[in-house]
Amino acid sequence: MRDETVGEAGEFTVIDRATQGRVQPATTLVGPGDDAAVVAAPDGRVVATTDMLVEGKHFRLEWSTPEQIGRKAIAQNGADIAAMGARPTAYLVALGCPPSTPLTVTDGLTEGLWAEAAVVGAAIVGGDLVESDQLVISVMALGDLEGRSPVLLSGARVGDVVAVCGRLGRSAGGLALLAADRDGAPELLAAHRVPMPPYSQGPVAAGAGATAMTDVSDGLLADLGHIASASGVSIDVSSAALTGDAVLNSAAVDLGVDELAWLLTGGEDHALAATFPGDAVVPEGWVAIGTVGEGGGVTVDGKEWQGSVGWRSFGK
Amino acid sequence: MRDETVGEAGEFTVIDRATQGRVQPATTLVGPGDDAAVVAAPDGRVVATTDMLVEGKHFRLEWSTPEQIGRKAIAQNGADIAAMGARPTAYLVALGCPPSTPLTVTDGLTEGLWAEAAVVGAAIVGGDLVESDQLVISVMALGDLEGRSPVLLSGARVGDVVAVCGRLGRSAGGLALLAADRDGAPELLAAHRVPMPPYSQGPVAAGAGATAMTDVSDGLLADLGHIASASGVSIDVSSAALTGDAVLNSAAVDLGVDELAWLLTGGEDHALAATFPGDAVVPEGWVAIGTVGEGGGVTVDGKEWQGSVGWRSFGK
Repeated sequence: MRDETVGEAGEFTVIDRATQGRVQPATTLVGPGDDAAVVAAPDGRVVATTDMLVEGKHFRLEWSTPEQIGRKAIAQNGADIAAMGARPTAYLVALGCPPSTPLTVTDGLTEGLWAEAAVVGAAIVGGDLVESDQLVISVMALGDLEGRSPVLLSGARVGDVVAVCGRLGRSAGGLALLAADRDGAPELLAAHRVPMPPYSQGPVAAGAGATAMTDVSDGLLADLGHIASASGVSIDVSSAALTGDAVLNSAAVDLGVDELAWLLTGGEDHALAATFPGDAVVPEGWVAIGTVGEGGGVTVDGKEWQGSVGWRSFGK
Repeated sequence: MRDETVGEAGEFTVIDRATQGRVQPATTLVGPGDDAAVVAAPDGRVVATTDMLVEGKHFRLEWSTPEQIGRKAIAQNGADIAAMGARPTAYLVALGCPPSTPLTVTDGLTEGLWAEAAVVGAAIVGGDLVESDQLVISVMALGDLEGRSPVLLSGARVGDVVAVCGRLGRSAGGLALLAADRDGAPELLAAHRVPMPPYSQGPVAAGAGATAMTDVSDGLLADLGHIASASGVSIDVSSAALTGDAVLNSAAVDLGVDELAWLLTGGEDHALAATFPGDAVVPEGWVAIGTVGEGGGVTVDGKEWQGSVGWRSFGK
C-alpha cells in the first residue's frame, strides 16, 4: 500500500499528528495551536537562535532516517543555546515540504524533533507547515541563562586556555564513509546522523568562568577563528591534544585521508569549545587543546593550517 | 554590469551587509554575530512564533520587490505576536537561497526586514543563511506581554461581540489583480505586497478585555473558525458590517468576482479579529462584525458560507 502523502492528508492533519498527546514542560505556558506560544523566561532574558537545514545540502534521506534528521535539526540549535551558557527551554519548527512527501517522513521527523528536545527537558512549542519544492527544516531554539551572564565569542583573553568538550571529527568521518559508500565504523555514521552536543556542559563551563565559548558547527579552526576574531586574539591548537580517537584514526587510514583534517575542519559534531582563564582548572569532561595569545588568527602547533578551515555555505 | 551573486560574495559578506551598522533597541542584550542572541524578557515570559515563506508559493519576485517580501515576512510574524496581546520585541530570520541569487535581492530583503521590524521598534537579532534551490524565508518573532495575560483562541464566550481592526479582502483583491495582469487600484496591490497589521491594537484589545483574538492570515471565516473551534462556540458574521470599501468593490466589479468572497475568505491582510464581552465597548478603531453563540462553526448572516473558507497549505 502506498503511503499517504502530506498533500493528501493536508496541513492540519500533519500538524495534529505532530502535536496531539505530547507532553509540555511546566515552562511552556501556551503550547502549539494558538497564534503564538508563550514560554517562561524566569531570568528576565531569553536566548534565541535559528538554523535552517535543507535537503541535499545539510542532509540526505538516503543517508539518514527522518527521525535522525529531526534530531539533528534540534541538536544543532540546542548546541548554539548551550554555547551561550544557557539551557534550551523550547523549540519552534517551520517545515517546508513537497505535497508528495509521505506522512511517514513527516511523522519520523516529528519523532526525532520531540526526542531530541526531550534530551534537555524541552519541547516543541510551535511551528509552521508550508509547501516547498525541497524539504526545508527551520528550527528556532529558546534558552534560559538561569541568572548567568551569556558567554560571548568576544571574551577570550591572552593567556587563556582553550578547551573542548565532546568529540571532534566524527561527523566528518561518518560523512566521508557515506560519500564513499563504505560501511563500518557505526560510531562515525551515527555521529554524522545525530550529533550529541554536551548540552549541560555549556552552563557548566559558564559557571566555571569560561571567557568565550562556541559550538563546533563549521569545524574547530573555523569556529575558534570566530572567537579569535571577535576577541582580538590569536589561538594556537596542539594537534597532539586532539588525536587519540582510534575509531576515527582507523577510518581515516581505511579511506587514505588525513585524520587531522577531520579533527580540525570537520563540522557538525557540535562539541563545545571554550576559553578559560589560564590559572583555572578546566571542568571535568573538558580537554585542554590550546592557548590564547596576542595577534590574530588560528594556528596549529604554531603554524598556519594548510587547507580549508571548514564548512561554508555557498563554498566561500 | 551583472550583479554580484550570493554564491560569489559568500555567506559572511551577505551577513555583514545585513547586520553591519544597524541599530538595536535597548532590549537587544546580545545581537547578531554570536552563537545566539539574548533579548530582554522583563515580563518573565516570552511570546514566540514562526512562519515560513516560500518563493512561488507565498510570494513572487515578479510581483513584489525583495524589500516588499522582507516587510511581508516580518509583518505576518509580528501580527501573530500582536494577536496574543503582546508587543513584538525581536525577530530572527533564516534565509535559504540559490547561489545565483543577486546581492540586490538579499540586500532588498534585508532592507524590508529591518524596515518592518522598526515599525514596532524591534530589530533583527539573529539569523542563518544557507543554500537552497528556491528562496525560503523563515522568520521567528519574539514578543513581550507587558504583564497582561495572553489572549488565546479559546476564550470566546456565548454573547460576546466579534470585532475586527484593519482592512479585510484587500490583499486578496490585489492578488487577483496581479494574477489577471491588471493594473489599477494601487491600494490593493500595495496591500497584497506589504500587509499593514495594526500591531499596537493587539495590546489595546487585550487591555480592553478581549476574550479571544487572532490575526486574519488564512481568511476571516477560516480564522474565526479557529476561535469557534477552540472556544466551543459558534460565530455569526454580518456581511453588511464588512462591505463599504469602495476601492475593493470597484476592483471586484472590474474583475466580475464577488467582493464578499474576498472579505470573508481572503487571507494575508493580517487584520486583527477578536471577541469582546457583549456589554463592553469595542476599542476605537475596531468594528463590530458579528456575535458569538452556542454550538459550533461560523455562519454569514445566519447561513453557511457556500465556497472555500480560505487559504490552506497543500490545498486542503
